[in-house]
Amino acid sequence: MKEKRIYNFNPGPAALPLPVLEEIRESFLNFGGSGMSVTEVSHRSAQFDEVINDAIERTKRLLKLDDKFRVLFIQGGASMQFCMIPMNFMKDGQSADYVNTGTWSTKAIKEAQIQGKTVNVVASSEDKDFSYIPKDIPFNSDAVYAHITSNNTIKGTQWASFPDTKGVPLISDMSSDIMSRAFDVNPFGFIYAGAQKNIGPAGVCMAIIREDMLEMVPDSVPSMLKYTTYSSKNSLYNTPPCFAIYTVQLVLKWLEETIGGLDKMEEINRKKADRLYSFIDSSDFYRGTAELESRSIMNITFRLPSEELEKSFVQKGLENDLGGLKGHRSVGGCRASIYNPTPPEAVETLVDFMKTFEKENG
Amino acid sequence: MKEKRIYNFNPGPAALPLPVLEEIRESFLNFGGSGMSVTEVSHRSAQFDEVINDAIERTKRLLKLDDKFRVLFIQGGASMQFCMIPMNFMKDGQSADYVNTGTWSTKAIKEAQIQGKTVNVVASSEDKDFSYIPKDIPFNSDAVYAHITSNNTIKGTQWASFPDTKGVPLISDMSSDIMSRAFDVNPFGFIYAGAQKNIGPAGVCMAIIREDMLEMVPDSVPSMLKYTTYSSKNSLYNTPPCFAIYTVQLVLKWLEETIGGLDKMEEINRKKADRLYSFIDSSDFYRGTAELESRSIMNITFRLPSEELEKSFVQKGLENDLGGLKGHRSVGGCRASIYNPTPPEAVETLVDFMKTFEKENG
Repeated sequence: MKEKRIYNFNPGPAALPLPVLEEIRESFLNFGGSGMSVTEVSHRSAQFDEVINDAIERTKRLLKLDDKFRVLFIQGGASMQFCMIPMNFMKDGQSADYVNTGTWSTKAIKEAQIQGKTVNVVASSEDKDFSYIPKDIPFNSDAVYAHITSNNTIKGTQWASFPDTKGVPLISDMSSDIMSRAFDVNPFGFIYAGAQKNIGPAGVCMAIIREDMLEMVPDSVPSMLKYTTYSSKNSLYNTPPCFAIYTVQLVLKWLEETIGGLDKMEEINRKKADRLYSFIDSSDFYRGTAELESRSIMNITFRLPSEELEKSFVQKGLENDLGGLKGHRSVGGCRASIYNPTPPEAVETLVDFMKTFEKENG
Repeated sequence: MKEKRIYNFNPGPAALPLPVLEEIRESFLNFGGSGMSVTEVSHRSAQFDEVINDAIERTKRLLKLDDKFRVLFIQGGASMQFCMIPMNFMKDGQSADYVNTGTWSTKAIKEAQIQGKTVNVVASSEDKDFSYIPKDIPFNSDAVYAHITSNNTIKGTQWASFPDTKGVPLISDMSSDIMSRAFDVNPFGFIYAGAQKNIGPAGVCMAIIREDMLEMVPDSVPSMLKYTTYSSKNSLYNTPPCFAIYTVQLVLKWLEETIGGLDKMEEINRKKADRLYSFIDSSDFYRGTAELESRSIMNITFRLPSEELEKSFVQKGLENDLGGLKGHRSVGGCRASIYNPTPPEAVETLVDFMKTFEKENG
């Protein structure tokens, strides 16, 4: 039982900015002078319109989206997008390119194939246990889209820059690095991100769609699975996950107003990651698992000399108020997820703990 | 701007029990001694396992479900179920029966038809503007299921008892009356309910499935749209909407431990509805819109002598701290939604206000 808040390195659901949590708590019984909780107000009220529209406007400003992009909020997480993307964008006789960089890419591919869609896996890093991001990828010029996973939470890899698909719309799962760095959105036809890592709680997925992609959506897709439904109704076709969208709004407000935007956020994130990687590289006890130039600035994956030490490291970490340091159950090892809300002090405290643990066990 | 909480007659998202909101607020920065918010804990943690399993066990006890029923939590609201039900339960060459009792039934039918499924609308109350629940329905013995909407939020009607489908699995959208009354679940193959009326916030849909229905699910359905995925993974195949499930757990705990279960809840709900209907029936100023024996105990729909008076009634209501009295935008009029969390005092206060309004405007 913890009396106080701990530093949280969970991979998702993950830490949220403390001022955001405090604002939610403060207004929880009476939101915006409505006399109701944010969980009780109508999604058709002026109060909620302000929430969702502010979240959209902040997203547009932060990512420098022009008017050809629409911002949508969809339920079901990134996993639902794995099936909605081929359902909306790929017709019979068409094919799409996928780059396989780990568990989430593999699932995205599988959900297209379940529907009988034609998928070309144009590159994969499976040969080296997904420890790197492939280069010089032979994208097909007739693909309807090219799908990548911008950051791989489990293996700790990230695309340092995005590939040139020669005009084929790029689609990316950005669940674990959206809003963590500045990038040029123009090559992208569609971007999606489960909120529960960088921008909010579990229960909502942000999607950014370029309007020409909306023309690809077939009529035979059910309403709740069609991007056109969300786009034409401002994500209010049915009752949206109001609380989750409200939290996203507050996180984006914090990102714009307290942090100062994506350039600042990226600078902070790179410093946090550099601090951890430099320490790991300087140690003979800890060993990073991702190839140098493919390293993620969000999920720092590393191993210790033995599985027993790793188990002890995770346990001792928690005893020292450092939570969530266990690697994904499918790969083992250790992992520190340091998304936007993780403050630099958390990383400093972690490095101190790692030093002490090494001394005691090295 | 309201300084205090108001009485909330919203149709959904709707009022939540005050003790539930207070408990969420209390634990919001440090949930269950985890040192994290409930929005920050891992969905694979022991803490969250306890939340979801407790919500499931309480549902089973409250509804007297035996082991052949599974309780699932799915995103996308009841609207997502409109498409998932035919996708999971109806193969080519098969057909299903639907009873059309209003907007939500109509949408459920439409989402089956979009997918090219064969739907038999075996009864409809459209002839009288959906003001009643049909009787003596000619269900087809070869239908794979028979679909009804147990309570119709917009028109204020409700099935007083469920129809005999002669062994064909009954499926019901119970979004607006789940957990409001005791009933025999045995004829049901599948029950679903968007949480945001009786049992929680928007962002999660409770589904109850009889295990034989799981055998009907085809392999060609994407993972996130298959009931078997949710059933085999205890609704934890991917990150679930943790906060919404947590709130549902607390509402069910309140229902079991504070209210005392469904028989007690039903008694309270019937008294609240009787109070309002008796007053409306005793007045020449207000007029109920649903036929007597089809009246909902959840959504009390009524009209005033003119649309102008209705507009003024809704406005004055809000000024008197009574929110959400406007009828659905598609039908106009007035509506008081009095789900489980609405206390009897709220109904008394509303009746007093209605009397005063009648005196001043009658």
